[in-house]
Amino acid sequence: MHHTESSSSLGPGGLDIAQAFFKPIQNMAPPSPTNRHTKISVIGTGNVGMAIAQTILTQDLADELALVDAIPNKLRGEMLDLQHAAAFLPRTKILASVDYSVTAGSDLCIVTAGARQNPGESRLNLLQRNVALFSKIVPPLAKHSPETILLIVSNPVDVLTYVAWKLSGFPSNRVIGSGTNLDSSRFRFLIADHLDVNAQDVQAYIVGEHGDSSVALWSSISVGGVPVLSFLERQQIAYEKETLEKIHKEVVESAYEVISLKGYTSWAIGYSVANLARTILRDQRRIHPVSVIAKGFYGIAGGDVFLSLPAQLGRSGVLGVTNVHLTEEEARKLRDSAKTILEVQNQLGV
Amino acid sequence: MHHTESSSSLGPGGLDIAQAFFKPIQNMAPPSPTNRHTKISVIGTGNVGMAIAQTILTQDLADELALVDAIPNKLRGEMLDLQHAAAFLPRTKILASVDYSVTAGSDLCIVTAGARQNPGESRLNLLQRNVALFSKIVPPLAKHSPETILLIVSNPVDVLTYVAWKLSGFPSNRVIGSGTNLDSSRFRFLIADHLDVNAQDVQAYIVGEHGDSSVALWSSISVGGVPVLSFLERQQIAYEKETLEKIHKEVVESAYEVISLKGYTSWAIGYSVANLARTILRDQRRIHPVSVIAKGFYGIAGGDVFLSLPAQLGRSGVLGVTNVHLTEEEARKLRDSAKTILEVQNQLGV
Amino acid sequence: MHHTESSSSLGPGGLDIAQAFFKPIQNMAPPSPTNRHTKISVIGTGNVGMAIAQTILTQDLADELALVDAIPNKLRGEMLDLQHAAAFLPRTKILASVDYSVTAGSDLCIVTAGARQNPGESRLNLLQRNVALFSKIVPPLAKHSPETILLIVSNPVDVLTYVAWKLSGFPSNRVIGSGTNLDSSRFRFLIADHLDVNAQDVQAYIVGEHGDSSVALWSSISVGGVPVLSFLERQQIAYEKETLEKIHKEVVESAYEVISLKGYTSWAIGYSVANLARTILRDQRRIHPVSVIAKGFYGIAGGDVFLSLPAQLGRSGVLGVTNVHLTEEEARKLRDSAKTILEVQNQLGV
Amino acid sequence: MHHTESSSSLGPGGLDIAQAFFKPIQNMAPPSPTNRHTKISVIGTGNVGMAIAQTILTQDLADELALVDAIPNKLRGEMLDLQHAAAFLPRTKILASVDYSVTAGSDLCIVTAGARQNPGESRLNLLQRNVALFSKIVPPLAKHSPETILLIVSNPVDVLTYVAWKLSGFPSNRVIGSGTNLDSSRFRFLIADHLDVNAQDVQAYIVGEHGDSSVALWSSISVGGVPVLSFLERQQIAYEKETLEKIHKEVVESAYEVISLKGYTSWAIGYSVANLARTILRDQRRIHPVSVIAKGFYGIAGGDVFLSLPAQLGRSGVLGVTNVHLTEEEARKLRDSAKTILEVQNQLGV
Repeated sequence: MHHTESSSSLGPGGLDIAQAFFKPIQNMAPPSPTNRHTKISVIGTGNVGMAIAQTILTQDLADELALVDAIPNKLRGEMLDLQHAAAFLPRTKILASVDYSVTAGSDLCIVTAGARQNPGESRLNLLQRNVALFSKIVPPLAKHSPETILLIVSNPVDVLTYVAWKLSGFPSNRVIGSGTNLDSSRFRFLIADHLDVNAQDVQAYIVGEHGDSSVALWSSISVGGVPVLSFLERQQIAYEKETLEKIHKEVVESAYEVISLKGYTSWAIGYSVANLARTILRDQRRIHPVSVIAKGFYGIAGGDVFLSLPAQLGRSGVLGVTNVHLTEEEARKLRDSAKTILEVQNQLGV
Repeated sequence: MHHTESSSSLGPGGLDIAQAFFKPIQNMAPPSPTNRHTKISVIGTGNVGMAIAQTILTQDLADELALVDAIPNKLRGEMLDLQHAAAFLPRTKILASVDYSVTAGSDLCIVTAGARQNPGESRLNLLQRNVALFSKIVPPLAKHSPETILLIVSNPVDVLTYVAWKLSGFPSNRVIGSGTNLDSSRFRFLIADHLDVNAQDVQAYIVGEHGDSSVALWSSISVGGVPVLSFLERQQIAYEKETLEKIHKEVVESAYEVISLKGYTSWAIGYSVANLARTILRDQRRIHPVSVIAKGFYGIAGGDVFLSLPAQLGRSGVLGVTNVHLTEEEARKLRDSAKTILEVQNQLGV
Repeated sequence: MHHTESSSSLGPGGLDIAQAFFKPIQNMAPPSPTNRHTKISVIGTGNVGMAIAQTILTQDLADELALVDAIPNKLRGEMLDLQHAAAFLPRTKILASVDYSVTAGSDLCIVTAGARQNPGESRLNLLQRNVALFSKIVPPLAKHSPETILLIVSNPVDVLTYVAWKLSGFPSNRVIGSGTNLDSSRFRFLIADHLDVNAQDVQAYIVGEHGDSSVALWSSISVGGVPVLSFLERQQIAYEKETLEKIHKEVVESAYEVISLKGYTSWAIGYSVANLARTILRDQRRIHPVSVIAKGFYGIAGGDVFLSLPAQLGRSGVLGVTNVHLTEEEARKLRDSAKTILEVQNQLGV
Repeated sequence: MHHTESSSSLGPGGLDIAQAFFKPIQNMAPPSPTNRHTKISVIGTGNVGMAIAQTILTQDLADELALVDAIPNKLRGEMLDLQHAAAFLPRTKILASVDYSVTAGSDLCIVTAGARQNPGESRLNLLQRNVALFSKIVPPLAKHSPETILLIVSNPVDVLTYVAWKLSGFPSNRVIGSGTNLDSSRFRFLIADHLDVNAQDVQAYIVGEHGDSSVALWSSISVGGVPVLSFLERQQIAYEKETLEKIHKEVVESAYEVISLKGYTSWAIGYSVANLARTILRDQRRIHPVSVIAKGFYGIAGGDVFLSLPAQLGRSGVLGVTNVHLTEEEARKLRDSAKTILEVQNQLGV
């Protein structure tokens, strides 16, 4: 299938009118090849991929947006639906194709494609199918955009970010998993909602493996710069460890709750990934809990494993990992998660 | 069902911590009742309603957003999914309920709810079911927000805007149908794509009945201030009336094409309606082709009928209709559409 | 002088064309009086006032912007210069007058007017002249906008915020001084610059009296949620109290440095105040260090005195003061500042 | 003078803390040299240059902003004043230096520097001094950023854009004068104000020489897609040619009026140039009336001359000139202006 960039069927006459409408000036030169646009590709146009693509478009983060999916009809439908809004948005070139050459020259490739669990299928089997899928996605992305940053959203995100890293041959700073960036936003929302403050004034991290075994960093919570745990202690406001764990549990369950209620999650992951895209492409050097290679941190050893840690992100991807203090229990949980993930990776043979 | 404003299950302890965290200052007074927020309600949380709600949220158009739907689970799932993005967005209060009291005090109510055609069902029967649906939606909206503006998106939009007007008892400037605002955007995109210009530099209107019998105003097309038809004439660039009609046909068919490809339209209508919301709530006094009461324009007579005409919109809704020049053929088409719609309205007995 | 809202000299014919251009629809009603715009007034169109007005305009925070100054020519020149940009900005109504009636119905009034120190003039004498000036500014503002929030920027900001409070008769939550909001931004910039992080990831407060005797809250500094002082301790990175004081000194001196280099400060105070305007008018409930009535906090007693404390702001002004922990030394410095300011206020006899 | 990028005096300890705060991950690679930022340089930090720089910063158009001026103190003061707002803005690197090497790698260089007229000085003498000034500005800009686009704002803008083109040796599409972009905005504001519509719905061009001899294209005026002159004719609304000329006169005089009232113009030119910067750097392909090489258009002959024409702009600068229809009188005025400018250029000997 060829690229479905333009939906126009106006025929070859179009060019003639355009040429009559604009006249060249004297002494013009062709565009310089160094005058590059900002280009983002989104792989997978399901609910998650499209929420990401649409949020990126609304927030004007790219000059060019390429969509790739295996299903040509769905793909073309989504492209047209975005293009039809042209009069309401800054001009962005929107491309779509089943062929990865449409992603050539991307600054950022966001992978949301993933196999769905079949009835009765084991997690390992599902994962193996996803690894097979990634082996068809990542090498062509890396080939067409050798300098791109890969941002993996597909689940299980930590293992698949590792897989993408291996398949791409990229340095580790250019392969990032969306990890617990959204979990942390849900955590911040719950705390903000509880205290009736703006969630942007709440600092709070969930790190580790994205999902049930994620680790809430209680000591990192602060509101408007006020560390909450020590505030509670000074105010002699009793709180039980159980209360804190209840909030964490609520975060973990909220993804399941949304899925059980509406069938999938889309908007929040869309905003979360667009937020990462902004930090990366506009070199904002902000700190986000995302999945990065974790070997060497907090005693994690034994192999290359990706886990979410508070990382500083910028135009070259991961700039470093924030040296945040963990309690021994938190560090142990991280190491346990790392071990579990490594075992899975060993089973996969990747 | 009670309002599902907050998803927190942290219990009554929340308030205590908040009270300890923030201390009142001396001599405070309660908020003035005149210090109103901007509140938008969206009725119907299907693909169209949610694309509208999410675009409104991303573009920061409201301080409070209320969602209403008849299906509580879907509704709560969508509310939670939006709320989870709090850390990435300016603070907006997001509410959801099956009960219309959640919409109280809205500045703008956007109705996207509609019945779907059953197999073998006649158009008239479907429309009668939609009228019945509107009789459950519009009166409670009008009751809870007597000063609101109603923006109708449900199809057939022109008849249903008339129905909403009758049911609300509102003055006609406060009942608007999204009409051909999106058709006109598709028209502008196709022309811009053809000439490789920015769609925001293209002026072009499609007016009349939203759908197959809409009317393209050829003489209104200008690009960067240059009227296109007279440009073509001066340049002696031949164009056939058939070419122009082909573009119009493409616009009409593009909605069907997106539906056949992805199953529904969502993103473009989301941007289109958010664009109207901005003009209305921020009193931008911009001109949009939207469905307004058309009696008295271009010889339309015989009854109250809503059709899209280029209207100036602002904080009080419709400010006036632009006195645009139509050819006799264009005016005749408008009158024919008006007649057809009136006949339908008569059959409905509304 | 009459209001100089419109610069058009097109004469009475204008209305006729407009009436021909837009036609009313059937059954229109006049705008509802409850459909209020967001209106901001800026008093004083010097460098500070205009940087604030222009930033508010660029950030699209108001539907109507009124400028007041005693010098009609300067005032009209500034209004026209802003109006001439209309084609590049969302529509905002821009008014200007020497008469305070132009501010009627403001949601927020920002006072930047102030007398300049004459050669050899004592600080007390200057302050007395500013009090006299405020007695001509604040009562008419309060009269024309009885529900407005007053945001005082003129220096010395803490005393003049108190004066504005007394003159207005407003509850204390509706009178706010810009205080150390900008000092804290400079503090955050210096720390961010030092660590090469995004200043938006730095939490740090300077509180107390705006100016030389302000108090840096060292224990409040965190970067990406990591408390910096305890980080340094854990990392056994030695730091001297002198180093910290040097940063604070640099903050205090940076205002003087900019004034000595370019003659005045403008841009940063413009962004700082626009930032407060957004939090207040869009009800963001964010926490800012601003000048609020401080009696009863940290042992401050003896009279009504305004000092900067981290306060939660929203649509009704000050919502509360964050219960942040101060060391005994920090609290003592605050009390000393309060005492000094109270002595000045007693001398003024206000 | 060295670059005054950072104002921090925290000393060499800074690096150590930063290194302790962020830890590198395994297998990192240095940033790719192709991952370029968007960089804008502004030459001249007077009222015009700073209004441009500040608007660019507020609108988040660049990742790096470099300021150059001959007066080091003023320059450093302006840089610090912008930097102090870091906490309120997306992260942008702000540099300043008297040395042009600070502009290296710019995507866009905006020149606002210009000599002021001495008492009794002839226009030709002033222009010669400005040419001498440009010979010190343009070659170093071209040397340090060989692929940059030059945007000239200094007056007389048409001659100085020609001078910059000659001095740079650049192809003509990469040298643009701000020309009548602001005049056209004033024109659109006056029309919009007259009709009470949004200026963004008004299309209207002033072209030709920036200043007294500019040419208003009456037939190009349309409001919401409705051509105004033919509307007036159809409505049999009489208008005198004098009325139209009066509006044009008001546009021409409004710059003088602002200067006489406030001493200079700043805000509107700031927004106007930021608007051009967005179209160019984000490749918006929008049409703006700007000063481009005009030889060959509308019978302009006899030499290379820059005049404002409606030009399509994008990432490679000028993409073409819109083939707008001029009346014979309008074309003649353009040719007369071209002749006058050519005579001046001949006198200059450039």
